[in-house]
Amino acid sequence: MIERAMDAVSGDRLRADIEANAEFGKLDVEAGRGRTVLPGTDANRRCRERFVDQLEAAGLDVRVDRIGNIVGRYTPPGADPDAAAVASGSHLDSVPRGGIFDGPLGVYGALEAVRALDDAGCELDRPIEVVSFTDEEGYRFDDSLIGSAVATGSHTPEDALALTDDDGERMGDVLDRIGFAGEGVLDASEWDAMLEVHVEQGTRLERAGVPAGIVTGIAGQTRCIVEITGETDHAGVTGMDERTDAMAAAAPLVTEIESVASELAAERGTTVATVGKLEVEPGAINVIPGQVTFSVDIRDTAIEVIETIFTAIESRLETLETDRGVETTLDQLYTVEPVPMADRCRDALATAAATGDVGSRSLHSGAGHDSMLVASVTDCGMLFVPSRDGRSHSPLEWSDWDDCTAGIRVLTGALASLASE
Amino acid sequence: MIERAMDAVSGDRLRADIEANAEFGKLDVEAGRGRTVLPGTDANRRCRERFVDQLEAAGLDVRVDRIGNIVGRYTPPGADPDAAAVASGSHLDSVPRGGIFDGPLGVYGALEAVRALDDAGCELDRPIEVVSFTDEEGYRFDDSLIGSAVATGSHTPEDALALTDDDGERMGDVLDRIGFAGEGVLDASEWDAMLEVHVEQGTRLERAGVPAGIVTGIAGQTRCIVEITGETDHAGVTGMDERTDAMAAAAPLVTEIESVASELAAERGTTVATVGKLEVEPGAINVIPGQVTFSVDIRDTAIEVIETIFTAIESRLETLETDRGVETTLDQLYTVEPVPMADRCRDALATAAATGDVGSRSLHSGAGHDSMLVASVTDCGMLFVPSRDGRSHSPLEWSDWDDCTAGIRVLTGALASLASE
Repeated sequence: MIERAMDAVSGDRLRADIEANAEFGKLDVEAGRGRTVLPGTDANRRCRERFVDQLEAAGLDVRVDRIGNIVGRYTPPGADPDAAAVASGSHLDSVPRGGIFDGPLGVYGALEAVRALDDAGCELDRPIEVVSFTDEEGYRFDDSLIGSAVATGSHTPEDALALTDDDGERMGDVLDRIGFAGEGVLDASEWDAMLEVHVEQGTRLERAGVPAGIVTGIAGQTRCIVEITGETDHAGVTGMDERTDAMAAAAPLVTEIESVASELAAERGTTVATVGKLEVEPGAINVIPGQVTFSVDIRDTAIEVIETIFTAIESRLETLETDRGVETTLDQLYTVEPVPMADRCRDALATAAATGDVGSRSLHSGAGHDSMLVASVTDCGMLFVPSRDGRSHSPLEWSDWDDCTAGIRVLTGALASLASE
Repeated sequence: MIERAMDAVSGDRLRADIEANAEFGKLDVEAGRGRTVLPGTDANRRCRERFVDQLEAAGLDVRVDRIGNIVGRYTPPGADPDAAAVASGSHLDSVPRGGIFDGPLGVYGALEAVRALDDAGCELDRPIEVVSFTDEEGYRFDDSLIGSAVATGSHTPEDALALTDDDGERMGDVLDRIGFAGEGVLDASEWDAMLEVHVEQGTRLERAGVPAGIVTGIAGQTRCIVEITGETDHAGVTGMDERTDAMAAAAPLVTEIESVASELAAERGTTVATVGKLEVEPGAINVIPGQVTFSVDIRDTAIEVIETIFTAIESRLETLETDRGVETTLDQLYTVEPVPMADRCRDALATAAATGDVGSRSLHSGAGHDSMLVASVTDCGMLFVPSRDGRSHSPLEWSDWDDCTAGIRVLTGALASLASE
């Protein structure tokens, strides 16, 4: 039965959905295919309306919650309509100038899996819910994973609806304006399990030459802000031995962060640390920097490794204070613990891949996803499909259509098996 | 005669002028005394009007040229009115949130010297001109030393008048609006010599405990822009060994620039190099930097030393290209050759200091001044007075009134001797 359902997956139907969705917020670019779909915009409204239409066309019961999460519920032949559902989905919003796969592959892939299960006439025990979470990327309201945060109770709906963008517009108002401020709140803890298909956004699958990546867990993450304060002085008249140059103090620390992370990565393969943002004050050619502020993003699947790097930064800052007379602060913005995927979800995905003869390998996720939050309230699994050159958040993001289809075949098999438990 | 003139210098009169001038564009600050006097503003008009009044009150003939340079001409008893004048002055404009001494000390100090020479009844051979150059600091029109550039022919008046500020306002129009678009062009090459008194903006005089610094020369300068291009990638999913991180590539170069300059400075005492401005693109916490652009300001009294540092940067950029796969560019924005002060001006200042029993030492200037340009067309000398803690371009800029008076006494003696040649 599982094989029959997997064989019923239509790559053409999936592609048609993703390509139709790619028209909303479409960019005029020379290379690749891009879109900008920020939450609450007209492009977002059109994405959502089309998705609701497709859910209904496939016979699913659609509901929209207060924060705009969209859920289509499918009750297969033979299923107990009151049983806890197995869910699958992702998000429809994009980063500014993003790609066409990040999010929509997981949303329309889940719908395609349901259509395949239905076409194959699979009898299952549990309902299946196809979900699109609101504002995963978090660019407009400066806070990501909004829809899944509300669905898992890590944000109250009131707090989420009160988020404002740079123009002072409230999340609640923009959802209302596009007609997607619904009722009630999706409760992910009621799900029996959830599976999310997503593009890898890295190169491990491409290098390994396999279309399916079974995610072992999502890396934990610490984000911190380092502030180094020296003394603003005239670049021409202040001797090298009279300076307290904040930029000259920051530079060796940036180097050290890279080298400590590289050493750990060489051992573990899962460690990354990045200085992505760095600002110099006052920032004039002829003025010695009085202050440098920079971000550090540290990730690993083990919280101890993240702490090792954080401690190395702390210790280097102490040295800089002593050696250079700068003042320093180190603020930890937040820490997200590493999140393991549930064994039974990983097993369901691995078994389906083997059943369908789809090459797979295990790998961790360095990026956060809606599943990271959902995993705190129910069993979660993730499946990655290869990203060409590892590109994402760019019009150059690309996944081969055959790999997308292979991934959704694995999803279909895994959903069938989880919904039969 | 020279001693009598030096003794006629009135510290009270000098202080009254500088304090009255400090009222224009005055800042409300908790510590220190600050002002913002950008060229062509109302504060600048009031500075200029008061200066003209004081020149006229002292009996000087005032003229204003097309770019707003103000000159007061004093013809001492016994002088040939057609002889080449000896000039002295500086500028009245300030940086945003600047101090009250940088510029005005040199302008009102020159006027005080003339008043002292006149009070002492000194008979001299040459006229003396007191000058205030337009827009030395260069913050409003993004180009510094404007008035002296026109007076020395390095800018045409047309080009200078056509400079626009961030709001698109023309230098010519703002000078016209405040009533200081005059006629003709001051020709500094007609001067026999020029002396400029200025605050040191460093700590050498303070540390040496002497009130008078006789400038040997003004450091040359190269300003360049380094651009390092890597690849923008996701900070979570791109392994440490898969990155081309522009910030991680830039950091060791910033460190190297500091260390090369420090080594040369330890030998010479005149070398400085500064990374004052650094921008990271795209500059997001969770994105690996794709591009870093930073400025380097290199100064020394010997052009070869500047070239040594520039070459070290070039060579390190080649290494970064090879080792890290980044692309790099190095643009030299401009180079100003070091400018020696004229021996006869230095001698006149040193002799006057000795005559007046004013402690002095020789030192170079790391900053550019109007004298740097004037020195290209006639003999120049500069005298520094101590800056408390080396502060300048800040409301904390301060020079003790006694040091100011001592400096102007030396100026008076030196002017008397140059105007007697």
